[in-house]
Amino acid sequence: MDWGQEAAQRLAEIAECSEAGPGVTRFPFRGEHRAALGHIEGWMARAGLAVHLDAAGTLVGHRAGPAGAQVLLIGSHQDSVRDGGAYDGIMGIVLACLALERIGDRDLPFAVEVLAFADEEGVRFPTALMGSRALAGTFDPGVLDRVDAAGVSLRDALAGFGGDPDSVAGLRRDPGRIRGYLELHIEQGPVLERVGQPVGVVTSICGIERNSLIFRGETGHAGTVPMAARRDALVAAAGLIARLPGLATQWPGLRATVGEMHLHPNVANAIPEEVRLVLEIRAERDADREACAARCRDMAHATAVGAGCSLSIERSYCQNAVACDPGLVSVLTRAAGRDVPQLPSGATHDASAMAELCPMAMLFLRCRGGLSHRPEEYASPEDMGMAIEVLARALEEM
Amino acid sequence: MDWGQEAAQRLAEIAECSEAGPGVTRFPFRGEHRAALGHIEGWMARAGLAVHLDAAGTLVGHRAGPAGAQVLLIGSHQDSVRDGGAYDGIMGIVLACLALERIGDRDLPFAVEVLAFADEEGVRFPTALMGSRALAGTFDPGVLDRVDAAGVSLRDALAGFGGDPDSVAGLRRDPGRIRGYLELHIEQGPVLERVGQPVGVVTSICGIERNSLIFRGETGHAGTVPMAARRDALVAAAGLIARLPGLATQWPGLRATVGEMHLHPNVANAIPEEVRLVLEIRAERDADREACAARCRDMAHATAVGAGCSLSIERSYCQNAVACDPGLVSVLTRAAGRDVPQLPSGATHDASAMAELCPMAMLFLRCRGGLSHRPEEYASPEDMGMAIEVLARALEEM
Repeated sequence: MDWGQEAAQRLAEIAECSEAGPGVTRFPFRGEHRAALGHIEGWMARAGLAVHLDAAGTLVGHRAGPAGAQVLLIGSHQDSVRDGGAYDGIMGIVLACLALERIGDRDLPFAVEVLAFADEEGVRFPTALMGSRALAGTFDPGVLDRVDAAGVSLRDALAGFGGDPDSVAGLRRDPGRIRGYLELHIEQGPVLERVGQPVGVVTSICGIERNSLIFRGETGHAGTVPMAARRDALVAAAGLIARLPGLATQWPGLRATVGEMHLHPNVANAIPEEVRLVLEIRAERDADREACAARCRDMAHATAVGAGCSLSIERSYCQNAVACDPGLVSVLTRAAGRDVPQLPSGATHDASAMAELCPMAMLFLRCRGGLSHRPEEYASPEDMGMAIEVLARALEEM
Repeated sequence: MDWGQEAAQRLAEIAECSEAGPGVTRFPFRGEHRAALGHIEGWMARAGLAVHLDAAGTLVGHRAGPAGAQVLLIGSHQDSVRDGGAYDGIMGIVLACLALERIGDRDLPFAVEVLAFADEEGVRFPTALMGSRALAGTFDPGVLDRVDAAGVSLRDALAGFGGDPDSVAGLRRDPGRIRGYLELHIEQGPVLERVGQPVGVVTSICGIERNSLIFRGETGHAGTVPMAARRDALVAAAGLIARLPGLATQWPGLRATVGEMHLHPNVANAIPEEVRLVLEIRAERDADREACAARCRDMAHATAVGAGCSLSIERSYCQNAVACDPGLVSVLTRAAGRDVPQLPSGATHDASAMAELCPMAMLFLRCRGGLSHRPEEYASPEDMGMAIEVLARALEEM
């Protein structure tokens, strides 16, 4: 059996479980999610797993182990962003099922559960990582009252899907019963492609902070206010943004991005009065991120003063870096071969939440052009075949 | 009679001819325009003028002169921007009527016409300066088919108001019959306030060009794409914008502005793929503007290359500077006193179009805080009284 080709075929099939439009749009607790679970149940059954839906809408496939043995969890998410790709999330479920199918009925010294989380992306509801947070005991029941764009609450959506909102908090696992958590995911970046390697072992998940900056100047007619009399909020903001790449490269692996910016009044013949932007910083080391953020604040204040503007900065979000478990990292490294690249994850994953519960590690797969969250997202059958082999070998050698 | 107080009272009255909302919103050929003409007709009558509406919707008040004498035109516009002020445009009509009322029946060696143009701002229809262009013979009949946001054509709006679309082109005046064109307007900038002078004589109307720039890079996940692998379109654009003030001040009086900018996809965790912006440059000397534009293009290409982006630039609009007539400038200067400030106009006015027909000159009035196109727009009764006196004296001494 060509396991990589089989993975590609399964991914093509389940990609049909999507709203209309380019690429894949599959939100939690909708018809597309229901249809996707039909496929996943079949894959789990072929791998010999006993399947049930838990209270948080996670489809769980259980493979029994020796009496009293711990459980190894292998998970990923079924949902996508809007107009996303056919690999992000769902590929991790496909590969886990195929690795277990490949292992067949050989004995493993632990039980295994494959977890197909309902919602990692957090696109439909203003919350994310529900399934993994529930298992880790960090789920906040308050978010059940949040609503989607149509006014449907997470509570009602989950209940209507066959979950049990009031039992989500009770899903918390006993850490003593868990061997660890593994997740396979496309890299969503260009590193593996550049070094020409099909897979890489993740060393940590980067910390992330977002800062909301508001530069405030004064508007005026672009033809009548002399340059020396201006307080141009865009000039102030541009001074920071232009210097950002030079600053960020002072810390290895750190990423600093202004991806979102809004001007007011945003008309060609008026000096910009206000610019709001989001500065996001991610780094493997929290100290690097904090140092860069401090320098950015200083720089932003300096460019604001230079342009005669005021500035307010608010750190709207912050999450510290999470290290992968050295033991599981070396298991994956041995299974993949000594030369396998080691790299941090710049993106958040279910593994970020699972790290609160148990040792965790991740295997990344090369994706074409580093592209993700887009219809063009692609990982090759060959690379997926390699990843299935690495995972199967890791399970057998643990 | 306190002419300045009378002007203030008339402006307060006509400010009521406005759509609901902050400040004044008076678009051409609507009920508010009709109501405003009721006031203006009354003022023209008190100044002894014979009133008629021309084919372009301009209200014309005629004061007879000696047989065969030329006509001196004094104009401004009745319309405002949305949520604009009570002075921009309409004040020039009020002051012209009051200056002629003040002169009374004293003989002047020319006829005089006060022109209340319907549409200078070009907010309702995507065209502007209709009344003045009609007189100058530069009106393009093709614009009659342009429609407003409700789908009403300029042709239908004008006809319904009592104008005659098919006769607009025939309004062209014989230059040999015109003595010149004068316009009084608030400065819409901070210069007169800064030098502490109530009025200033305009030396020229700045040339203006607009350039549409599109920086194109590559999007990607803000957490996963290393800094060195990025092609960030916002970083490229910021490099230009941050350097703009330093560049612009190399030419006296030149103004360079990026007031409008659009990012795509404009979300916090995605590298900006595309940035579109409008770069506007205005200068008294066309050669300065051209030189600055060339430097900006070079700089934009350099920052684009530096950020790994491509760049397209299109000059979407260009209008050369127009000099005021030296003879009329010296008439206004003598009337205002030798120390009156001389300054260029950074904004376009009906005078820009009238310059194609005849000698023209403008008198600017100080406005509070340099503010215009906003409800806070303000010129004091004292300054308006001074301007009425200057205009009356100029007419008597011409």
